[in-house]
Amino acid sequence: MRLSRYFLPVLKETPSEAQIASHRLMLRAGMIKQASAGIYSWLPLGYKVLRNVERIVHEEQQRAGHIPMLMPTLQSADLWRESGRYDAYGPEMLRIRDRHERDLLFGPTNEEMITDIFRSHVSSYKSLPMTLYHIQWKFRDEVRPRFGVMRGREFLMKDGYNFDVDYDSAIHAYNRHMVSYLRTYERMGLKAIPMRAESGPIGGDDTHEFLVLAETGESEVFYDSAITDLTFGDRDVDYDNREECAAIVKEWTTPYARTDDTHDESVFAEVPEDRQRRSRGIEVGQIFYFGTKYSEPMGATVVNDQGEHVPVHMGSHGIGVSRLLGAIIEASHDDNGIIWPEGVTPFDCGIVNLKQGDAEADSACEGLYHALRKKGLEPLYDDREERAGAKFATMDLIGLPWRITVGPRGLKNGVVELTSRRTGESEEMSPEAAVDRVAQIYSGT
Amino acid sequence: MRLSRYFLPVLKETPSEAQIASHRLMLRAGMIKQASAGIYSWLPLGYKVLRNVERIVHEEQQRAGHIPMLMPTLQSADLWRESGRYDAYGPEMLRIRDRHERDLLFGPTNEEMITDIFRSHVSSYKSLPMTLYHIQWKFRDEVRPRFGVMRGREFLMKDGYNFDVDYDSAIHAYNRHMVSYLRTYERMGLKAIPMRAESGPIGGDDTHEFLVLAETGESEVFYDSAITDLTFGDRDVDYDNREECAAIVKEWTTPYARTDDTHDESVFAEVPEDRQRRSRGIEVGQIFYFGTKYSEPMGATVVNDQGEHVPVHMGSHGIGVSRLLGAIIEASHDDNGIIWPEGVTPFDCGIVNLKQGDAEADSACEGLYHALRKKGLEPLYDDREERAGAKFATMDLIGLPWRITVGPRGLKNGVVELTSRRTGESEEMSPEAAVDRVAQIYSGT
Repeated sequence: MRLSRYFLPVLKETPSEAQIASHRLMLRAGMIKQASAGIYSWLPLGYKVLRNVERIVHEEQQRAGHIPMLMPTLQSADLWRESGRYDAYGPEMLRIRDRHERDLLFGPTNEEMITDIFRSHVSSYKSLPMTLYHIQWKFRDEVRPRFGVMRGREFLMKDGYNFDVDYDSAIHAYNRHMVSYLRTYERMGLKAIPMRAESGPIGGDDTHEFLVLAETGESEVFYDSAITDLTFGDRDVDYDNREECAAIVKEWTTPYARTDDTHDESVFAEVPEDRQRRSRGIEVGQIFYFGTKYSEPMGATVVNDQGEHVPVHMGSHGIGVSRLLGAIIEASHDDNGIIWPEGVTPFDCGIVNLKQGDAEADSACEGLYHALRKKGLEPLYDDREERAGAKFATMDLIGLPWRITVGPRGLKNGVVELTSRRTGESEEMSPEAAVDRVAQIYSGT
Repeated sequence: MRLSRYFLPVLKETPSEAQIASHRLMLRAGMIKQASAGIYSWLPLGYKVLRNVERIVHEEQQRAGHIPMLMPTLQSADLWRESGRYDAYGPEMLRIRDRHERDLLFGPTNEEMITDIFRSHVSSYKSLPMTLYHIQWKFRDEVRPRFGVMRGREFLMKDGYNFDVDYDSAIHAYNRHMVSYLRTYERMGLKAIPMRAESGPIGGDDTHEFLVLAETGESEVFYDSAITDLTFGDRDVDYDNREECAAIVKEWTTPYARTDDTHDESVFAEVPEDRQRRSRGIEVGQIFYFGTKYSEPMGATVVNDQGEHVPVHMGSHGIGVSRLLGAIIEASHDDNGIIWPEGVTPFDCGIVNLKQGDAEADSACEGLYHALRKKGLEPLYDDREERAGAKFATMDLIGLPWRITVGPRGLKNGVVELTSRRTGESEEMSPEAAVDRVAQIYSGT
């Protein structure tokens, strides 16, 4: 993309309404614009990151064998009356009446709807195990929406639901989700720690939240520092293998890690003192096993291998897709702006032309632009007639991890400059070498 | 995908509520499930096609230089009061009140919101031309939702908005959209004819609808058969070239083609009689030029090259993404089921194992499955223990354009059978040749 043809409305002023870094930076970098309280438009740069996060979630869900589909945003109130949640949910549920005076609601989650789909179409254990998921816009009418996309009202979420014939199989689904989530967050450059949590209005006997450490997090967290040393890496997991998934879950759930809801000082005291950490965290996902809580009242049963009708065991598993953008920025920024991890960056590499209009500089930039695209990369070429300082400031603000700087002086020696946004370190090299280096960096993502 | 691990709830019975082929077939093929009147869940197979259609729309919009973003589903009523449409829109607008008694609405379209974004961030003609678009769920509270996704209430639409400094530039944007739409529909295997139309509640001086010919279409259409002979092919269009775009528009708008709204018998009579066609059509898109209808009341102005503040010229351009699935099926099915064009098919090729459990047949199917995937294709392998007849019926119903049939008898002679869904013709060849043939068919899509 050439910046002269893009819509990137960066702000020079720091917006006064934004209290935390991610909100401030998303507004300043022209990623979002508030439409109403807690409701945002995703401007082109923000939309690109949102799509990247969504793509990683899709890829990892499908790698784990989960099946994508899509449920609508609006739901019939009748389904929620069946489960008893229509009245129980409270004022966070946005209730709507259509022209025929039928009660609808903007879905805050989809347990009822997916259970209805399941009971309409599945009747035998032979169709199990099955996990269906979707990524759809949800609405929760927060009293005080704040912190930008971190606590918005309309938000994008992946929610997945497993259907299993018995407890053991459902626990494997739970474990499979935990494993796939570990991998998902790591691909986004995040350290997200699974912590034992309390169940909310969804209900559940077994549940973990995934928290990203950040000073601005809304939850207080307590953990053994050993857990932050764990990395998932590129393990080749067989998601059908119960023992393998259980072993990974054990690895991540053995060190103490809890939110204030479940924190137990006496257990925490057993962690070696130099490894005890008290901090704050941002919730970016949650997994639940809730057994037959919905399948029983809603009559979602299957015939098992004994010929008996049994209610299916279910769980639900969520990732806060839009919220993740805030969490990533909270975890990865500096005074000059955002620092995107390679996995989610909106453009792979910036190209800064120090002397727009200079034939040689223009031609070198064009060459880099095409060479990067030919490697399957997406560069953002700042081809505006602006001072170098302004161009650098924009690139730092929007946080592309790599920048190639092109100027007449370097070109005389046949070199351009490759700069890391994270370290600030620069290296001079030929344009070809710069292209190869950037391609090499992204070859693993 | 292995069918034994997929969720494909095909129906044997023809659902009584469905009046037209596409609705019937989408229900029978397990593509959708009604959630409420005019509101559907997209089951895995339907979701895959929806994503394919969406991907083609994205690719062609970006090829034309249009910039993707995303606006929320819910909008503030205040914006619509500014344009005067809040009261004018009528009962099709779903009006919502939140917990703080603020008026919201589920967006049926986004002229107001995009104009607000524009006026907040753009002030100079130097930022123009600019076209922003998004693909988002919309809601129109139809009195009688019917025909499945063809006339639903919650529907997925691409809507794009151009901003230009003057009339000529806005007309180029109009033409650019027409050209990109021609290419978009053709990639989906559709013949969509641009027809002069009347403007609806969006308002507009110049507007064309795109109609797919189908007996079940809601609009009556009149056209010169010369227009259906035109094909777009893989022309390498320079979307910045005004003359080139205008010439293509001229090519497609010269033959007579109008809906009943704008039909003129006296003009139609001038078409040679043997080329006069009266038929029905399904609207799958519409483009509008409406000048300063929104920019004036909402104060969306830019400074032009004379230093004057002028309201921007705008247009809006829509593609009915979810409705397209219905239109494609109306245009492409037979008594046995759907016939997907290669461009949008949910899976590229089916594999039918005639004797599941036979070591040789199983191993040949596994070999084909992996070989196709290695070529970047997505096969659907029917690995269930079912009769051959049931497997063929499922494949015909869900409409994959190509099927490879594997059985012990053929394997003895080293061959499998490759069958075209469209023609029903089969050819025997080695498994390797079948894989190469299928890969070759898809290499152009």
